[in-house]
Amino acid sequence: MNKRLRDYGLTIGSLPTGPNNSITDVTGVKVGHCTLDDGPIKTGVTAILPHAGNLFTDKVMAVSHVINGFGKTTGTIQIEELGTIETPILLTNTLSVGQASDALVQYMLEQNPDIGLTTGTVNPVVGECNDGYLNDIRGQHVRAEHVLTALSSADSSFAEGAVGAGTGMSCYGVKGGIGSSSRTIELDGTTYTLGVLVLSNFGLQQDLVIDGMRVGEQIAQIERTSRSASDRTAAVPLTEEREKGSIIFVLATDLPLTERQLKRICKRCAVGLSRTGSFIGNGSGDVVIGFSTANRVQHEPTASIVPLRMVHETSIDLAFRACAEASEEAILNSMVAAKTTVGRDGHLRVGLQEYLEEILEQTRA
Amino acid sequence: MNKRLRDYGLTIGSLPTGPNNSITDVTGVKVGHCTLDDGPIKTGVTAILPHAGNLFTDKVMAVSHVINGFGKTTGTIQIEELGTIETPILLTNTLSVGQASDALVQYMLEQNPDIGLTTGTVNPVVGECNDGYLNDIRGQHVRAEHVLTALSSADSSFAEGAVGAGTGMSCYGVKGGIGSSSRTIELDGTTYTLGVLVLSNFGLQQDLVIDGMRVGEQIAQIERTSRSASDRTAAVPLTEEREKGSIIFVLATDLPLTERQLKRICKRCAVGLSRTGSFIGNGSGDVVIGFSTANRVQHEPTASIVPLRMVHETSIDLAFRACAEASEEAILNSMVAAKTTVGRDGHLRVGLQEYLEEILEQTRA
Amino acid sequence: MNKRLRDYGLTIGSLPTGPNNSITDVTGVKVGHCTLDDGPIKTGVTAILPHAGNLFTDKVMAVSHVINGFGKTTGTIQIEELGTIETPILLTNTLSVGQASDALVQYMLEQNPDIGLTTGTVNPVVGECNDGYLNDIRGQHVRAEHVLTALSSADSSFAEGAVGAGTGMSCYGVKGGIGSSSRTIELDGTTYTLGVLVLSNFGLQQDLVIDGMRVGEQIAQIERTSRSASDRTAAVPLTEEREKGSIIFVLATDLPLTERQLKRICKRCAVGLSRTGSFIGNGSGDVVIGFSTANRVQHEPTASIVPLRMVHETSIDLAFRACAEASEEAILNSMVAAKTTVGRDGHLRVGLQEYLEEILEQTRA
Amino acid sequence: MNKRLRDYGLTIGSLPTGPNNSITDVTGVKVGHCTLDDGPIKTGVTAILPHAGNLFTDKVMAVSHVINGFGKTTGTIQIEELGTIETPILLTNTLSVGQASDALVQYMLEQNPDIGLTTGTVNPVVGECNDGYLNDIRGQHVRAEHVLTALSSADSSFAEGAVGAGTGMSCYGVKGGIGSSSRTIELDGTTYTLGVLVLSNFGLQQDLVIDGMRVGEQIAQIERTSRSASDRTAAVPLTEEREKGSIIFVLATDLPLTERQLKRICKRCAVGLSRTGSFIGNGSGDVVIGFSTANRVQHEPTASIVPLRMVHETSIDLAFRACAEASEEAILNSMVAAKTTVGRDGHLRVGLQEYLEEILEQTRA
Repeated sequence: MNKRLRDYGLTIGSLPTGPNNSITDVTGVKVGHCTLDDGPIKTGVTAILPHAGNLFTDKVMAVSHVINGFGKTTGTIQIEELGTIETPILLTNTLSVGQASDALVQYMLEQNPDIGLTTGTVNPVVGECNDGYLNDIRGQHVRAEHVLTALSSADSSFAEGAVGAGTGMSCYGVKGGIGSSSRTIELDGTTYTLGVLVLSNFGLQQDLVIDGMRVGEQIAQIERTSRSASDRTAAVPLTEEREKGSIIFVLATDLPLTERQLKRICKRCAVGLSRTGSFIGNGSGDVVIGFSTANRVQHEPTASIVPLRMVHETSIDLAFRACAEASEEAILNSMVAAKTTVGRDGHLRVGLQEYLEEILEQTRA
Repeated sequence: MNKRLRDYGLTIGSLPTGPNNSITDVTGVKVGHCTLDDGPIKTGVTAILPHAGNLFTDKVMAVSHVINGFGKTTGTIQIEELGTIETPILLTNTLSVGQASDALVQYMLEQNPDIGLTTGTVNPVVGECNDGYLNDIRGQHVRAEHVLTALSSADSSFAEGAVGAGTGMSCYGVKGGIGSSSRTIELDGTTYTLGVLVLSNFGLQQDLVIDGMRVGEQIAQIERTSRSASDRTAAVPLTEEREKGSIIFVLATDLPLTERQLKRICKRCAVGLSRTGSFIGNGSGDVVIGFSTANRVQHEPTASIVPLRMVHETSIDLAFRACAEASEEAILNSMVAAKTTVGRDGHLRVGLQEYLEEILEQTRA
Repeated sequence: MNKRLRDYGLTIGSLPTGPNNSITDVTGVKVGHCTLDDGPIKTGVTAILPHAGNLFTDKVMAVSHVINGFGKTTGTIQIEELGTIETPILLTNTLSVGQASDALVQYMLEQNPDIGLTTGTVNPVVGECNDGYLNDIRGQHVRAEHVLTALSSADSSFAEGAVGAGTGMSCYGVKGGIGSSSRTIELDGTTYTLGVLVLSNFGLQQDLVIDGMRVGEQIAQIERTSRSASDRTAAVPLTEEREKGSIIFVLATDLPLTERQLKRICKRCAVGLSRTGSFIGNGSGDVVIGFSTANRVQHEPTASIVPLRMVHETSIDLAFRACAEASEEAILNSMVAAKTTVGRDGHLRVGLQEYLEEILEQTRA
Repeated sequence: MNKRLRDYGLTIGSLPTGPNNSITDVTGVKVGHCTLDDGPIKTGVTAILPHAGNLFTDKVMAVSHVINGFGKTTGTIQIEELGTIETPILLTNTLSVGQASDALVQYMLEQNPDIGLTTGTVNPVVGECNDGYLNDIRGQHVRAEHVLTALSSADSSFAEGAVGAGTGMSCYGVKGGIGSSSRTIELDGTTYTLGVLVLSNFGLQQDLVIDGMRVGEQIAQIERTSRSASDRTAAVPLTEEREKGSIIFVLATDLPLTERQLKRICKRCAVGLSRTGSFIGNGSGDVVIGFSTANRVQHEPTASIVPLRMVHETSIDLAFRACAEASEEAILNSMVAAKTTVGRDGHLRVGLQEYLEEILEQTRA
């Protein structure tokens, strides 16, 4: 598997991780990718399945939260109104949201012959970032078949970095993409898990902070030093005036929560985001999609009044901390895992790994 | 007791009411008034108690919803974040919110010696409307003793119209004030109650509609006719250019709901409001405070994970309809119940009763 | 052209309309349809163009407002964050949002070769209602070519009723679809126009109210009477337990406004909606998209600080009233204009015209 | 004057500060304190005046933003609806909001004899934190006279730390209180200033981070070492299970903005907050009140349409960065400036200064 932050001896925060330090530590959650990597085509699809069953008939309680809305994520209006997600969650590039959304609808129609006939419609959830720096995004290369591949390949084990929707993403001037992390908390003797998956594509190089270290400034220094000696870095943009891009957070937990509580937790994704150095730039579409597998909502209920459970607010701080920590580490994992990528028009994003050991040696010296 | 809309043979909507067609049909809810009616002093306090116990230790699940925010209601930030109300709800005039809020804090401190010492603070909830047309509102005549009187007089039976916080309020150019109504709905063989109490103080006379009848236009016609013959109407402002004032809705139900669901229901107060003729003017502070007595939240829980219940969304339409109907009828009750009042500087608001029989005779003729 | 409410001697409210009582009374606004009407295929696309130029380079100030979010409208996150619309607005059926969105992106890419290459991406705005009662919605019959047809046919004159996106829509148990209305207001001697276009697809028959008259109940009475004599009505569902469907409002104005003010105005669409009898049911996706043509935002500005204008809040009430009136009349126009339609599986929606004269005769008798 | 972060050779971020690195670098803004420090009484009032004129007749464009709403700040509903602030902003302790609010109303009534008589009412804005650890908060010691003292003492020069509303506040387990910072940005050759003032009262000691350094952990280490040798630290709570408290941010700028833009900027206060180590705990009332002095709104306008200016969104990133940096530094200044304080029941909060030199020596060694 890919390298991760902890392989470099770095940890974020104090809470324990789940067994795989991944969103799939939340029982039932699966993630699949379809990677399109062919010359200037550097894009793909990532699918997150909240559980293995039929999500339309057995919905999960869910919320969305917009940190900064320069983005085109679709499906959030209904999530907010009804508090449920009824499809897998797809991630892809900005200009392929329509195609991905359409393919997801088709997938749901096939699974559910009653949709649009004897019951209502279905709400596809698709998040996106703009991979146009590396990818020929105008080509709109994502097709229905790619969506189906991502959905069918979903597993509890999955790759991070420059894969799936992350194939062409950039983060803090280096390569971004898919990353994940998890935390566990104990309440009354029971262990609950909270996992985060990110599609990272934001930030200016100079701003990158890892565990308090100003790594972005160090990378810039390395680049300036090596530039005279190397053609390779000629394509690296050392300064970009505007923070563009985006980040999508998908948060999963088995903690029982009401929608209000789940939204409170999702807001703490921005804490982790801020700690990696971003000030959350204007041009960023930063959106959180969160769900709890503990509270399910049946499409056809057997009773008008249904039971559910919630955490008492006096115990919610651990979940806040878990979210902040997992969000920060998921972002860093997305960068550590991502390999150097050359995309359209020779555009280059170096993988963070190429800098990290040198930087850590400097810092620890 | 005061007259009500149904005494004139008029009903709103199709759902059955509770036994008293009142917010106190929701078991445990009580309402108390303190009326200040002394020359130019036309104001007061109304207290709504969600249950008879200690609200700080045994909170009710709650939300707020701002229809139009030209208002000074206090306490809503915490209601939204935590989904609970932990004090009685007070209504008073705009410039007395500070005093009422302070008195409510003192009342809670006396009941709870741990507040501010070994536990956190307390969030007073106070709604308001501007009764300055009839009341010497600059005098800030509401004192702590008046708050305590309203709280201690709370009962399941209470007066409507020009009483308590409603003493000096105006609505659609006639006298407004306190009004209430309720509806019952059946789900799986169990009866649930939804009640609304309003403090009404909004609207232009010309816009008033009762059950589809343009009563406001008819009142204006009556006034024009009688003006030449009567000094009385000289003080009646037939035209006001701007819709000022406000309306506070307090919604109570014993239906089990999550905060998201309760908020959805509370949004339907605006449906009832719109049907009485208002377009929800700029100068109006239109706020809903809603709570469910079915889902309680303990200040000191015995477990980190607590059970609750919710209505399944496919059964929520009845509650929406109940809210719309009860809101509309509560507004109309507040006007039907209110007596003609002469306030500061000879300002006059005629009670709707003085017009209603004549108008109904005309209409039915 | 189609019949409209005023052809029956009915008017809504008191403000004057624009010359065509239509959203296109706002200078520059155009509307185009592509109607798919072929056996069980009863759907289409409607396009609203805020102005005739390149919307990506010359954006209009805009907001969205969710009245009830059981809907799949896309594009609202960015509208809210940036306060602009940068594409035409499309309306179509729920399961074709992905295709319509994708086609709109392609259309914008062709107009703007810099998108995704040297500048950012583009935010397509697509609203929807579920026409599945009449339309074979599972067939997802809307294609890119239909979107282009709607866009290219946009004109200041356009049909209402069962056309474009409205082809298969139902409203209050009869035929719904596209409707429009406008109002003008005068401020400091200048006339401003506010226009509303709706795609109507909501409501229970029994609830329909026209100008205070309980027309829905009268229709039900007519149906009950004629049922014994006619096969025709066999397919008419006299009672539906749940309010499904949706309504999309598109609001245009040439009044200069900040985003906050525009949102305030858009909220008054729900006033008009409520007055037609709806309590805004659970199953309804009721969304407002509003824009002002008076405040433009350039994609590439010539200065960092740009001038704009706003209405002073003390003059905003007229715009509120205009919105409430135009919204109510646009809904009623959508029904009056719509012809009786037989869709998939013999499903029937009768045009309101078939009842209206009889009902008005009864009422006026 | 008090010590500040930069006196220790530490700086936050990269943008230049205004001349005094203070909210009062925004021309016209003034700050005044009234400090109540008498045995167990450790509280007070801080007043922020957006400009020196009559705020009711000459309002400033404003927004509020709730980061976490376990708080009792009052006045935000109207700020959000109308986009203006029309009174000075007061800060005080949680249980004195009612008194402060009432005193502020009285102050406004005296300045404006038309309020409540010939014009509408007034919206007092009061923020708060819970100083109950050090202060006898149940005593509600803040009176109208203290509010007037704070208002009348407002100046462009003011003290930070344990003064005014900050007298009894705690932050990250040490002494908190009032802190400020500013940044300047250049757009098209003009310099604009953005200033932040905080009332800090949040966080767990272990979480404190200063400029990437885990100072909280170091303080805990120092405490553990010195505990055996000193009685002094006996009262220091090394571990508190829950993050309580709050933080109020007041943000001022002379950059011209619409309300939407101003709110976007205010959201970046949470970036600065997160970087000091907080995960924004459940028990925290974290609220931002922001205003721009560049766009004024007259109570009685001379025209219905008024001009204003806004920054073009492509230039807003600098303001985001300025907000994040100033917020972080204002928090740290509030702690650096605050002296060790012993409050009610011998409760102790040590000033950060007592630890900071030792910690910086360790770190730099």
